[in-house]
Amino acid sequence: MNYNEKSYALGSKRSIIREIFEYSKVRAKEIGADKVYDFSLGNPSVEPPQMVTDTIIELLKNNNPTVLHGYTSAQGDAEVRKAIADNICKRFNVKVGADDIYMTCGAAASLSICLKAVVNDGDECIVFAPFFTEYRVFVENAGGRLVISKPKENTFQIDLKDLEEKLNKNTKALIMNSPNNPSGVVYTKETISAVCELLKKKEEEYGHPIYLIADEPYRELVYADVEVPYLMNYYKNTLVCYSFSKSLSLPGERIGYIAVNPEMQDSRTIYLAVCGAGRSLGYVCAPSLFQRVAGKCLDAKVNLEAYEKNRNLLYNSLCEYGFTCVKPDGAFYLFVKSPTGDATSFYEKAKEHEILIVPCDDFGVEGYVRIAYCVDYNRIKNSLAGFKALAKEYNL
Amino acid sequence: MNYNEKSYALGSKRSIIREIFEYSKVRAKEIGADKVYDFSLGNPSVEPPQMVTDTIIELLKNNNPTVLHGYTSAQGDAEVRKAIADNICKRFNVKVGADDIYMTCGAAASLSICLKAVVNDGDECIVFAPFFTEYRVFVENAGGRLVISKPKENTFQIDLKDLEEKLNKNTKALIMNSPNNPSGVVYTKETISAVCELLKKKEEEYGHPIYLIADEPYRELVYADVEVPYLMNYYKNTLVCYSFSKSLSLPGERIGYIAVNPEMQDSRTIYLAVCGAGRSLGYVCAPSLFQRVAGKCLDAKVNLEAYEKNRNLLYNSLCEYGFTCVKPDGAFYLFVKSPTGDATSFYEKAKEHEILIVPCDDFGVEGYVRIAYCVDYNRIKNSLAGFKALAKEYNL
Repeated sequence: MNYNEKSYALGSKRSIIREIFEYSKVRAKEIGADKVYDFSLGNPSVEPPQMVTDTIIELLKNNNPTVLHGYTSAQGDAEVRKAIADNICKRFNVKVGADDIYMTCGAAASLSICLKAVVNDGDECIVFAPFFTEYRVFVENAGGRLVISKPKENTFQIDLKDLEEKLNKNTKALIMNSPNNPSGVVYTKETISAVCELLKKKEEEYGHPIYLIADEPYRELVYADVEVPYLMNYYKNTLVCYSFSKSLSLPGERIGYIAVNPEMQDSRTIYLAVCGAGRSLGYVCAPSLFQRVAGKCLDAKVNLEAYEKNRNLLYNSLCEYGFTCVKPDGAFYLFVKSPTGDATSFYEKAKEHEILIVPCDDFGVEGYVRIAYCVDYNRIKNSLAGFKALAKEYNL
Repeated sequence: MNYNEKSYALGSKRSIIREIFEYSKVRAKEIGADKVYDFSLGNPSVEPPQMVTDTIIELLKNNNPTVLHGYTSAQGDAEVRKAIADNICKRFNVKVGADDIYMTCGAAASLSICLKAVVNDGDECIVFAPFFTEYRVFVENAGGRLVISKPKENTFQIDLKDLEEKLNKNTKALIMNSPNNPSGVVYTKETISAVCELLKKKEEEYGHPIYLIADEPYRELVYADVEVPYLMNYYKNTLVCYSFSKSLSLPGERIGYIAVNPEMQDSRTIYLAVCGAGRSLGYVCAPSLFQRVAGKCLDAKVNLEAYEKNRNLLYNSLCEYGFTCVKPDGAFYLFVKSPTGDATSFYEKAKEHEILIVPCDDFGVEGYVRIAYCVDYNRIKNSLAGFKALAKEYNL
């Protein structure tokens, strides 16, 4: 073969989200950006905290630029890693040190690296539906086999019974994403406890570790007083994949980290495997300026009220029009049931109203669409007439 | 196996360069940074052009931060890609368009992605010794087998005869790095022409394309009027991996690009395979702020005179003391022959004088060390007594 067919397939069949995003840019040129109601991409609409810009300027002023923009250690700048570790310890009452932290180019890199660190050819990795479609790509790149665990109907919490059926001696890792993309659901303490108890039991039964990979780009994006349990407190063999993309509204800058639980069995070995996996995937170090920015902005927060206002308007309106959706406790997605049960036709009908939403069949739950409400409030307001018309077409 | 052994091996046995770099930081704390003559890392010592800092500040001032730090298309911001394509066309008289450019997180990412785009399991990839050791990691991650072509003695130009012996029907790609790390050699027009003629002949003979991957982080770092031939002008099936790490002194920011020659056979397919390879390795997009910085600083230049001054002092001094080294036309490395023919003992003896140099056996040429002279002029000056003493120990 003249080229790598898997790579070609992944490049020519883009993720549906990216596909719609590209269409939206073309369509905006045709009819004007204000006429296209693009809800496809999880691109934060809320500005980064002012502290981010201030920190960049301060760093530029007070540092030798060859150091500031120079290579850091492969695992990341030591001071930044210490700041992150201290912050985690303070917030979650765990014992993570600087040497348990590995800086990455964002959540996708974190996941790819973690999987490549622990997975061997043929190992199974369980994801909880609905799940972010790229998990499949990352699992398969690591040589693993994706196994989907179905959620409880309506609540989209984890279904323990289904999970138990999917676990077997080939299970190497699970990816848990809470707040969840695309459902916006936060897994409860009770769910987490039960999952972790089950995993411990299965680890003993199989005689090998099962790694719990926490994908946490949405950790800070929760509404009201909802608590997002910190998995290290429930399960030793936990790797946390964190990203500043959403918490600081910096998704394009590709900055995040992996935290390897030091309480984990063979934690040094796993940490070194993380370093090696990063190396083999071509990650030399995470972007140096934004490592420092992240390290200095750990307590900075984006304006969550804007997302909450968006959620309330969209959720309340769609419910009023007769659509069925899960009320999200976190992230910035609304997971809406197709009135006919068919996601693709729902997506296509919405498109006729210039409303761009993501059909979620690839996310492991059929018949739903994802609406990313991380957009300008006016886009939601102006789209409502279209949603209303759509509801009428469906006789809701 | 509880984890991935290959990843662990790569993480626990760091690249020798990184190993020495880490030692140097520890040693500097023990005896003072000014007493450690670290020549291990290719970390530019020359400041980024002032235009880089000015551009960052201007971008921060004049752009909506959610756009500036937001996701770009996976292949990179369209305007940036156009600026780069136009610049290439102007400089090298080729016909590259924005859609032939794919922005990356630096040269290591570019190479990993190109290899993953074209290589299938068992394909052979030829590198020209001496070669940057990480090539082996990237080739093997793509499922390829590294094949080393030996250079001509003394000049370290490519040895056509040896190359012809290494080419066979399993050859999928070659990586060419000029100016070369670690030798500083620039391959001449004559060398390039001869290599490309041979490759064309072999492509016809085997009936499949052989890709030439140009690894060009050092393109702009040449001394006097030495010309670095642009490979697309010599060979259709060329992919150029460029990085701004050295040309703008931004190695930690991880910014570069891949240019797929549009004249290449199936160039659209290969471009899409590049996109897919990037996706599977976890690269969502290249860092967004520095994409824009790079796009606006294409004609900016670092102060090459400083590197040339370093080269002259070091090269002339070492020759005077009796060491044998290749005079580098580009990059910022001096490739020095071990007086005993043994690189490791040379490295160890130098270490006794607090001089940290890299033994290059892993680079495919035995008995040489690499001295990265991208350091402060005074570090070179202050190290000379040590080099002189070293020469005496060897009775040079």
